[in-house]
Amino acid sequence: MASSSYAVDISKVTSGRQASLQDSVAVEEPLEIRVAYSTPDGRATRSVSVTMRTPGNDTELAAGFLYGESIIHKADDIASIEVCGPPAPDSGNHNVVRVELRANVEVDLGRLQRHFYTTSSCGVCGKTSLDALRAIGVDSLSANNTSFKTGTLISVPDRLRAEQATFEETGGLHAAAAFDDRGELVVTMEDVGRHNAVDKVIGFLLLQGRLPAAELGLMVSGRASFELMQKTLVAGMPLLAAVSAPSSLAVQLANEFDATLVGFLRGDKFNIYAGEQRITE
Amino acid sequence: MASSSYAVDISKVTSGRQASLQDSVAVEEPLEIRVAYSTPDGRATRSVSVTMRTPGNDTELAAGFLYGESIIHKADDIASIEVCGPPAPDSGNHNVVRVELRANVEVDLGRLQRHFYTTSSCGVCGKTSLDALRAIGVDSLSANNTSFKTGTLISVPDRLRAEQATFEETGGLHAAAAFDDRGELVVTMEDVGRHNAVDKVIGFLLLQGRLPAAELGLMVSGRASFELMQKTLVAGMPLLAAVSAPSSLAVQLANEFDATLVGFLRGDKFNIYAGEQRITE
Repeated sequence: MASSSYAVDISKVTSGRQASLQDSVAVEEPLEIRVAYSTPDGRATRSVSVTMRTPGNDTELAAGFLYGESIIHKADDIASIEVCGPPAPDSGNHNVVRVELRANVEVDLGRLQRHFYTTSSCGVCGKTSLDALRAIGVDSLSANNTSFKTGTLISVPDRLRAEQATFEETGGLHAAAAFDDRGELVVTMEDVGRHNAVDKVIGFLLLQGRLPAAELGLMVSGRASFELMQKTLVAGMPLLAAVSAPSSLAVQLANEFDATLVGFLRGDKFNIYAGEQRITE
Repeated sequence: MASSSYAVDISKVTSGRQASLQDSVAVEEPLEIRVAYSTPDGRATRSVSVTMRTPGNDTELAAGFLYGESIIHKADDIASIEVCGPPAPDSGNHNVVRVELRANVEVDLGRLQRHFYTTSSCGVCGKTSLDALRAIGVDSLSANNTSFKTGTLISVPDRLRAEQATFEETGGLHAAAAFDDRGELVVTMEDVGRHNAVDKVIGFLLLQGRLPAAELGLMVSGRASFELMQKTLVAGMPLLAAVSAPSSLAVQLANEFDATLVGFLRGDKFNIYAGEQRITE
């Protein structure tokens, strides 16, 4: 079991007085994701991502990342997935995940690169980003009838916090969870990176054969950006709820695909930015 | 002047009661950064990044991004920098920045790609990440004698908040600032992305000819990750202070390069995770 907190010696300064003590910080370490796949000439292995993450649930992270980037489309695209590489000298963690894809899976790794090297004669704008999602087959949720009661929604942040063991210790981790219409948490994940926490949740659901998750909501501890709304939609989930503020493009994206977006979910309050019809009572 | 907030119609739910009202969210839109440079065959232009950012200070963002990625090394590497592209149909913002590099600047755009396609026979670990920084010429700050008084440090978050106009309105923006040893803010920037806010600050300093900024500290509104500590070091700044928690790799990086790392800077309290010698009184 990888450790997700790390002991450090600190000086704590309070009202000008200084004290030495030992504290814990959240572990951040690079994870390399390698994909093995078929080419016309045989099998090839390629390193597709190095992400800074908190060790733990690395196979879910890799699966969720590949799914969110539309490199894979279903759990069955994966033949095997394993943590490998030698133990890192400083932590003992294994920081490579190797994902073996089935022989019949066609992969377009160029997709990852296009995030960086785009060619867009007319420049980019919010609309370009929404169109890109349609192009990878993300559908409108207008026919999705899942609903969540107000009382259920406001119970989720407390349930999430109760599961956040390392956050309590370090104050340094984001959390994400999938929950059902009774507010039960199906899975909770933590990570120094918000996107990683979400990838771990979605990877878990994928590997359990539960995607698309048309009856689950996604809760995140921070803000709701375009990218998190995108991951929610790609997973087929009808609702994203965030403890903090959404961005303009997250709101536009939710409206465009008839998803529900809730922000500032704290105490007995929240704001509905899109898809009000799914919130009842 | 690009607008950094966006009006949306929301439902506000409080103790089960629902009210319709208009609210503001932080604008998030893609920015494409294009670099024009010399090749053996003449000039070439390449799109090197599409980042989701809050419009405003886009030239500083582009300059800071290229500097932080070590594509450029000084302000004089830039011949011109301009916002271009047609206005986006939805917002009217111009979402392309074109950076013209001087003829004598040798660029290694492969560097950007290597973030994604690494080849590391032994896997990756924290140490690999630290070594990578040495390789791009980041030096130890052991000879840097800048110091900050406790009273000065604890004044910075309030000064930063006073400058955060859009945060007040939307609750959705991160802020970053460079400050001197009297606590004066040299520059403050906001963005939906933490890294963008820091890139804007560093880009501003670069374009003003103030890098390396051996006498300035960097303050960020969120957490201190490896990547933010890295940007601090590349800019030659001796101190990173964060409102929230640091990660393990940020602490290790600060120790390795003799930088000062402060976390949980709130009210009259803060924690020193590395480089205590620069905090006086």
